[in-house]
Amino acid sequence: MPHTSPIQPIFAPDAIEAASLAIIDAEVPEPRPYDGPRWDVVRRLIHTTADFELLDLVRFSEGAVRAGIRAIETGATIVTDTEMARCAIPPRRLAPFGCAVRCFMNDPEVAAAAKAAGSTRAALAVDFALDLPGPLIFAIGNAPTALLRLISRIDGGAPAPALVVGMPVGFVNAAQSKALLMTRADVPWIAIAGRKGGSALAGATINALAILAGAETA
Amino acid sequence: MPHTSPIQPIFAPDAIEAASLAIIDAEVPEPRPYDGPRWDVVRRLIHTTADFELLDLVRFSEGAVRAGIRAIETGATIVTDTEMARCAIPPRRLAPFGCAVRCFMNDPEVAAAAKAAGSTRAALAVDFALDLPGPLIFAIGNAPTALLRLISRIDGGAPAPALVVGMPVGFVNAAQSKALLMTRADVPWIAIAGRKGGSALAGATINALAILAGAETA
Repeated sequence: MPHTSPIQPIFAPDAIEAASLAIIDAEVPEPRPYDGPRWDVVRRLIHTTADFELLDLVRFSEGAVRAGIRAIETGATIVTDTEMARCAIPPRRLAPFGCAVRCFMNDPEVAAAAKAAGSTRAALAVDFALDLPGPLIFAIGNAPTALLRLISRIDGGAPAPALVVGMPVGFVNAAQSKALLMTRADVPWIAIAGRKGGSALAGATINALAILAGAETA
Repeated sequence: MPHTSPIQPIFAPDAIEAASLAIIDAEVPEPRPYDGPRWDVVRRLIHTTADFELLDLVRFSEGAVRAGIRAIETGATIVTDTEMARCAIPPRRLAPFGCAVRCFMNDPEVAAAAKAAGSTRAALAVDFALDLPGPLIFAIGNAPTALLRLISRIDGGAPAPALVVGMPVGFVNAAQSKALLMTRADVPWIAIAGRKGGSALAGATINALAILAGAETA
């Protein structure tokens, strides 16, 4: 029978979260590769995955965290590329700011438009989102096609979003699409270099920014 | 400007998936640490996260894959511990078998019962799920409290589920709860040892089993 460590007597979700963040802080002693609000974001991504390799992979454009916080404070709409990422962002943290979280992937109009255009739902969902009023934050954790379409639309003159969280995961164009995003100086971005990423990480980045926004206004 | 690899001309979701699985196959040459249907499961978990460390961490009880496939083929209800894991399991793969995917975490009755019992919603959601008719598969990707409650209810005489996918992620009791699950011979389980896990992985495990079930009946 394998050795089983004793269960810690910590069961309330808030207490578990606080204990978890303290463990991560202790296991990544200063000087850390990120500091201030950037560490708050990266620490939450490690909390979401228990993957310390993220310490080498998370990248921020200059001012991206500030841009994300400000967008949330002004009621930005968060656009995700999967229902999973949408579900990763609990409304309780964003509702005080009037932010909605939208995902167009299962929208029947998007499916019809994708079919008509011979394109993917992920790409067309970006077009639908860009028509929304007000500031936008894109949280892309799955589809390189979505991130590529967003960059191409910005190149084509669409207004740059307030922030792009670029974290598609995988083996085909995920790393490439993120590398392309990270060359951009015309839009604030937070990204994970290489293949890793995912809906949980894209969602957790938004949650981290919402917590930072909440702390500012508290 | 960082070097940017060329974008691969592969954009259809099915083609991306096939190319991704082929890349993983090529990067993990035989003999692999898993074979047959176990490799189909582990490969999909790597596809979900791009995390090859899973090659050392995924564990199966004897016959667990077969038990999961059979449960899906008999229309089992899949119970998840988060909305995110529920969203990770698209209905299209399970609907042909009559399987529903349920999550009780946001059920108001669960919240009320948890408050009355001084317990967590995660634990009470397990109790509600155990009252469902028919075979059950638990897919737990977030809450060690849910997995611990499930084990404790089995110890207390509740009928063992058809399969437990035990993949809570994190720093407080995640590894411990999974280590406890992995000592059990009285219930089939698939688990990730240590801290890693998550809703995406728990969901991807169900998807892998559903694909295997579909291949059998195709």
